[in-house]
Amino acid sequence: MRAVEHYLDQVKSDIDALLDSLIPAEDIEPQSLHAAMRWSLFAGGKRIRPAIVLAVGEALGGSRAELMSTAAAIEMVHTYSLIHDDLPSMDNDDLRRGKPSCHRQFGEATAILAGDVLQTQAFKTIAEDGLLTADVRIKLISLLAAASGSPGGMASGQQLDLAAEGNVVPLEEIERIHQQKTGALISAAASAGTMIAKGTDEEFTAIDKYAKKLGLLFQITDDLLDVTQGSLELGKTAGKDASANKATYPTHLGIEGTRELAKKVRDQAINTLAPLKGDSEILSGLAMFVVSRTN
Amino acid sequence: MRAVEHYLDQVKSDIDALLDSLIPAEDIEPQSLHAAMRWSLFAGGKRIRPAIVLAVGEALGGSRAELMSTAAAIEMVHTYSLIHDDLPSMDNDDLRRGKPSCHRQFGEATAILAGDVLQTQAFKTIAEDGLLTADVRIKLISLLAAASGSPGGMASGQQLDLAAEGNVVPLEEIERIHQQKTGALISAAASAGTMIAKGTDEEFTAIDKYAKKLGLLFQITDDLLDVTQGSLELGKTAGKDASANKATYPTHLGIEGTRELAKKVRDQAINTLAPLKGDSEILSGLAMFVVSRTN
Repeated sequence: MRAVEHYLDQVKSDIDALLDSLIPAEDIEPQSLHAAMRWSLFAGGKRIRPAIVLAVGEALGGSRAELMSTAAAIEMVHTYSLIHDDLPSMDNDDLRRGKPSCHRQFGEATAILAGDVLQTQAFKTIAEDGLLTADVRIKLISLLAAASGSPGGMASGQQLDLAAEGNVVPLEEIERIHQQKTGALISAAASAGTMIAKGTDEEFTAIDKYAKKLGLLFQITDDLLDVTQGSLELGKTAGKDASANKATYPTHLGIEGTRELAKKVRDQAINTLAPLKGDSEILSGLAMFVVSRTN
Repeated sequence: MRAVEHYLDQVKSDIDALLDSLIPAEDIEPQSLHAAMRWSLFAGGKRIRPAIVLAVGEALGGSRAELMSTAAAIEMVHTYSLIHDDLPSMDNDDLRRGKPSCHRQFGEATAILAGDVLQTQAFKTIAEDGLLTADVRIKLISLLAAASGSPGGMASGQQLDLAAEGNVVPLEEIERIHQQKTGALISAAASAGTMIAKGTDEEFTAIDKYAKKLGLLFQITDDLLDVTQGSLELGKTAGKDASANKATYPTHLGIEGTRELAKKVRDQAINTLAPLKGDSEILSGLAMFVVSRTN
C-alpha cells in the first residue's frame, strides 16, 4: 500500500509538471478559456489514469519518458469529459473536487469550449511527442479516439447513462454503460502503456483483463462513495445518484453487498496479473488503492 | 464559374459518401447520438472546406484518394463547431441550414456529445487513413489540432467572439477574431492539401496567402448575408449580428462598402495564385464563388 501511494504521489508531480507545460498559460489570450482549462485540470485529480499508463508500461519494461505524453493526453480527455458531464444539461453538478465546477466558475460557454480544447490538446500532445515513432503515435491516437468516442466509448457511455436516468435498469445494463463511460478510457490507458512498452500478445491480453476489472472496480467504488460520503469528503455533490434515481450497485446490492463485490473484483484484478514476468506490485497496489478509498 | 460549381457538386457527392461510411449508422446504439451527428453533418453544407483541401491538393498534383479522409475530417471539425456554437449558452441559434439546430432537435446534452464525438472522429479518421504514411498523418493531426484549438485557433476565436459581443470593437480586432474563428480552419484545409500533395516551400507560401484571403472573404460575405438576407434564404436566424450588437464589416463599412471590400479581397486572393505552375482555375473559381453568394 505504501509503495503504490508513493508511486501515485510521484506520478502526480511528474504529470502535473508536464500538463502545466502543455496547456497555454493563463496570461495568454483568451485568458478566461485557458484559466478554465487549468481550473479543471489542476483541481486536485489523483492522476489515476496517467498512473495506469505508467505503471503498465514500466511493469513491461517501458521507459517513463516515452510514456509521459500519452499519460498526460489521457488525463486531458478525462478532464474534458468531467467538464462536459457537469454541465447543466448533463449531470448539472455545481461541485467538482471540492470546488465550483468549471461552468459554475467560468460560465457555460467557456466551460464547453474548455472541454473542447482539452480534447483537441490531447490528440495534439500525442501527435507531437518527440520520442515515439510516428507509427506508434498513430496507433495511440486511434486507440484513444476509439475509447473516448462512439459507439462503445466514453461519450456513448455518457449518452446511455443520461438516457437511463430515472429508469429501472438491470445490473448487466448498468455494467455495460459503465464499461463504456469509465471502463473504455481505463482500458485505453492500460493498452497504451502496453503498446509503448512493446508488450507481447500474452502481456497485452493479461493487461487488458486487468484493466477491465480495474474499470469495473472504479465504478463500484464510485457508486459506494456517492452513498457513504458527504459532499465535503467527496468533493462533489453527494447522494446525486439516488436523487437522480440513477441505477447503481448499492441500489441493486445494498451497501454491504457492494463492498463484498468490490473486494471480489479487486482480487480478480490482482489475479489477472499472474502471467506477467515483470514486477507488477504497483499494478496490484492500484487495485487495492481503488478499494481502500471506500473504507 | 460553371467549372467551380460542377467541382463543388462532385466534391459534395464524394465527401458525403465518405462521411456516411465514417460516421456510425443511426441504428447503432446510442441511436440518438449518432442521429444527432448525422443530422448536423448532412444538413446540406456545401463542403467548402473539403473542396479547399481537394482543390489545393489537385492543383499541386496530389491524388484525390489521398486527400479524401483529411477533407472529411476537416468537415467533421467544422460541423462540431457549428453544433457547439449554436448552443443556448453560446450563440443560441434555433435554426441552422434551414432546419432546427442540433440542440433544438435532440436536446442540449445530446448536441454537446454529438459535437464532442465529431471532433474525436475527425482525428480518428486521419489516424486510420490507409493511404498516407504515418509521418504525414501525424503532421496533419498536429496541423488540424493547432487550427481548431487554442490559442490562435477556432475555439479561441469563438471565445474572443463571445467576449466581444455587445462591445464596440475596432475593425482590426474583428479581423483578428475572424482569422481565428473561421480563417484558421480554412488555412488548415489549404495547408493540408499542400502537405498531402507534397508541395514545395514556394507553393506552400502562395497557398497560405491564398487561404488567408479566402478566409477573410468568407467572413466578409457571411456578415453581408446576415444583413441582406432573410432567415429563410439564409437557413439560419438572420439579423442576429445586429441584434447581438456584434461587431461586423457592415456596421463599420456599410453594405456597399462591405461589397467593395469583398471584391477587393477576392481579387487579392486570385492574385496570390500567380506563382503556381499547375491549373489553379478551381482555386480562383472558389474565391469567385464565395463572393457570388452575396449577389
